[in-house]
Amino acid sequence: MEQIKVFLDESEMPRQWYNILADLPTPMRPPLHPATGEPVKPEDLAPVFPMNLIEQEMSTDRWIEIPEPVLEKYAIWRPTPLYRARNLEKALGTPAKIFYKNEGVSPPGSHKPNTAVAQAYYNKIFGIKRLATETGAGQWGSALSMACQMFGLECRVYMVKVSYNQKPYRRLMMQTWGAECIPSPSNRTEAGRKILAQDPDSPGSLGIAISEAIEDAVGDPEARYSLGSVLNHVLLHQTIIGLEAQKQMEKLGLYPDVVLGCAGGGSNFAGLCLPFVRDKIHGKDVTVVAAEPTSCPTLTRGPFRYDFGDTAMTTPLLPMHTLGHDFVPAPIHAGGLRYHGMAPIVSHLLEERLIEARAFDQIETFTAGVQWARAEGFIPAPETTHAIAAVVQEALRAKEEGKEKVILFNWSGHGYVDLASYDAFLSGKLTRYELPDEEIQRALASTEAFPKP
Amino acid sequence: MEQIKVFLDESEMPRQWYNILADLPTPMRPPLHPATGEPVKPEDLAPVFPMNLIEQEMSTDRWIEIPEPVLEKYAIWRPTPLYRARNLEKALGTPAKIFYKNEGVSPPGSHKPNTAVAQAYYNKIFGIKRLATETGAGQWGSALSMACQMFGLECRVYMVKVSYNQKPYRRLMMQTWGAECIPSPSNRTEAGRKILAQDPDSPGSLGIAISEAIEDAVGDPEARYSLGSVLNHVLLHQTIIGLEAQKQMEKLGLYPDVVLGCAGGGSNFAGLCLPFVRDKIHGKDVTVVAAEPTSCPTLTRGPFRYDFGDTAMTTPLLPMHTLGHDFVPAPIHAGGLRYHGMAPIVSHLLEERLIEARAFDQIETFTAGVQWARAEGFIPAPETTHAIAAVVQEALRAKEEGKEKVILFNWSGHGYVDLASYDAFLSGKLTRYELPDEEIQRALASTEAFPKP
Repeated sequence: MEQIKVFLDESEMPRQWYNILADLPTPMRPPLHPATGEPVKPEDLAPVFPMNLIEQEMSTDRWIEIPEPVLEKYAIWRPTPLYRARNLEKALGTPAKIFYKNEGVSPPGSHKPNTAVAQAYYNKIFGIKRLATETGAGQWGSALSMACQMFGLECRVYMVKVSYNQKPYRRLMMQTWGAECIPSPSNRTEAGRKILAQDPDSPGSLGIAISEAIEDAVGDPEARYSLGSVLNHVLLHQTIIGLEAQKQMEKLGLYPDVVLGCAGGGSNFAGLCLPFVRDKIHGKDVTVVAAEPTSCPTLTRGPFRYDFGDTAMTTPLLPMHTLGHDFVPAPIHAGGLRYHGMAPIVSHLLEERLIEARAFDQIETFTAGVQWARAEGFIPAPETTHAIAAVVQEALRAKEEGKEKVILFNWSGHGYVDLASYDAFLSGKLTRYELPDEEIQRALASTEAFPKP
Repeated sequence: MEQIKVFLDESEMPRQWYNILADLPTPMRPPLHPATGEPVKPEDLAPVFPMNLIEQEMSTDRWIEIPEPVLEKYAIWRPTPLYRARNLEKALGTPAKIFYKNEGVSPPGSHKPNTAVAQAYYNKIFGIKRLATETGAGQWGSALSMACQMFGLECRVYMVKVSYNQKPYRRLMMQTWGAECIPSPSNRTEAGRKILAQDPDSPGSLGIAISEAIEDAVGDPEARYSLGSVLNHVLLHQTIIGLEAQKQMEKLGLYPDVVLGCAGGGSNFAGLCLPFVRDKIHGKDVTVVAAEPTSCPTLTRGPFRYDFGDTAMTTPLLPMHTLGHDFVPAPIHAGGLRYHGMAPIVSHLLEERLIEARAFDQIETFTAGVQWARAEGFIPAPETTHAIAAVVQEALRAKEEGKEKVILFNWSGHGYVDLASYDAFLSGKLTRYELPDEEIQRALASTEAFPKP
């Protein structure tokens, strides 16, 4: 019987996170203070994040130690297994070998707790009592709720309203872990009230929810804000995925030809891929692909500019691929991919041609997701189906070319609480969605070009 | 850092199931044909089950080979990890060591696919085209849906109506795996129509749903019926859980003082415990405990009699603890434990005092479940919270006694799609329920005492 899974012992769990800033061929543009146009200083961020995380955000150290209490919580579900999708390979009739890192085995069912646990820990030791955050599909909010419970912090989550209504079970997970969950836009904040005044039926967006959570946090000296993607320190914490995967592939005596992940804010994609991008920088021949939705095509169609991370323009200006901070994506089912921007690190790598990006329509991704579920059993999250659509594309290309390609991707989470979206797909209620060109013009108008060097 | 998980390689996966019939100190009473009062013969069961499974049902061979195609599907999620609940131990301040077998890592999220995959395989090689079954909470129906999809069989599931309404996501899982799911009682069968005529608002019960599924299967020569618990061959397939756990405990150099599982039909309890009961029969000092709901207290209050496995009295008479085949339990949230009877093997072991049974109210079990989720992260199925309540009881007893007891239990499934019941609990909507004594009198009247030897 062919081996399907590769486990690592807890003793083999990486003890350090990997920081790609130490290896970039050209340095990244700094985040700018919107008022001064100068690079933000650590103290500018102090009302929002604890200083220990700000230091990580700005660090260029290649390796950063994972604190023992974080490792202890990681050990509840990490190292996660590496699986081979043997049954999908057979169903596709491909000579490709398909491997996936199963991040769905964590208690909230996704990769998100890798950074949630770390952030809760750093806030705790900094003396913070409460965290405020936003969530799209609910993966992040539930992960942070669990992490806060584990370290004895209070947690308040602003959940994008369309997801709050579509995914009641995510809210219930947060409550089970003791957190408070509020649909956004809400009346709790100035930012929320402003949106509601303009559009009482606003479905919400990650950008709006971020504004609400930041406003909430900065108004309470015992609270801080926590972000589940986009920022450097978040991507840093996620690199444990790729570091484990490298050990696991090594045990198999294999190295991937293609490494893949879906990309919303960029953290699960980066978590798996950054350690492989490091290899690529050092000469390894590996293709790294980010899969995103056609309805929110940040990397494939959004310009690379300075833009705010949130709708209310309270964050620093981040250098990123963006559809504009006021962009409200169509209410597609992969809520976690409905973010107007993209992690600066991921955006930078695309410009450096160290990674590539492809966009998939949700009809295509759910088709791939159902094919996956029927072959491999596990039901993927709608976000994850974007990576699967890209995997199917690669595997079929390998079949045409008759190549024994090795494909590795991040199975970022399960879809147990997203089954309503499968219902919509299976009953033919989903529609295709292509972003109109005018939206790109709009993005250009609402963002800032990079200053000439 | 203390180790929390014990993995086994696929090469260490047991290659045989364990059949406790080979080791019982006294033989079990046979199932009886209700018309003749004689022990049922294999051919009596032929319209219901394929002959290869009937042979397994009646076998007294100690070890039964697991077919290679079944092992291949098992390998998608097995061997399952053994976890230590270190955070719960700390929260309880107990010197006890608490271990659990995490069966929630399977694609449908419970132990059920251990037998679903085996049954789908045996039906497939026997030439069957379609399986019909019933499901309570939906764990079994979703597991069989996946297994049928894997072996190319059609699948029709009669789901107890109260669960069908409470747990829409389970139905969606079945549909995602390509099965048809029908609320029971339904108009599709004589058995269903009869119940609906008496009570159009019947919440349904496992007994009723079983009657419908059997009637459906015997009416189609290309179809057979499949049962997710109770029968010998089902418990047999589940023993892979306990056999793996024994290897894992051995790796730790430990042997449990107490082994625990929740019990509805008895299969997850038996799956973990039977290999340990074997040790007990051979002199080992180990306490084996089945945890059940006070609202359906089959083992703790139901008489040990001959009774039908279903409401319409179409099955053989099974020697079991039972509340009567016409018993309709209160609509508690642990749908998988709402069965009027109990596996004959488990019932027999209780009579032989090789195991003991305890009943817990759902308020108690959800309290334990939330405590678990907040300490260990993973949210347990409502069924599983019964085992956890018993674990908490044992751990606190160990604390009082100052004993370093080793507790092992079966974490039979996750509660991702049962979050509505957590919501009911957290918002104070659940009530206590104690079965009135009259129900026991009723059970005695509707069942048959064992014939004098």
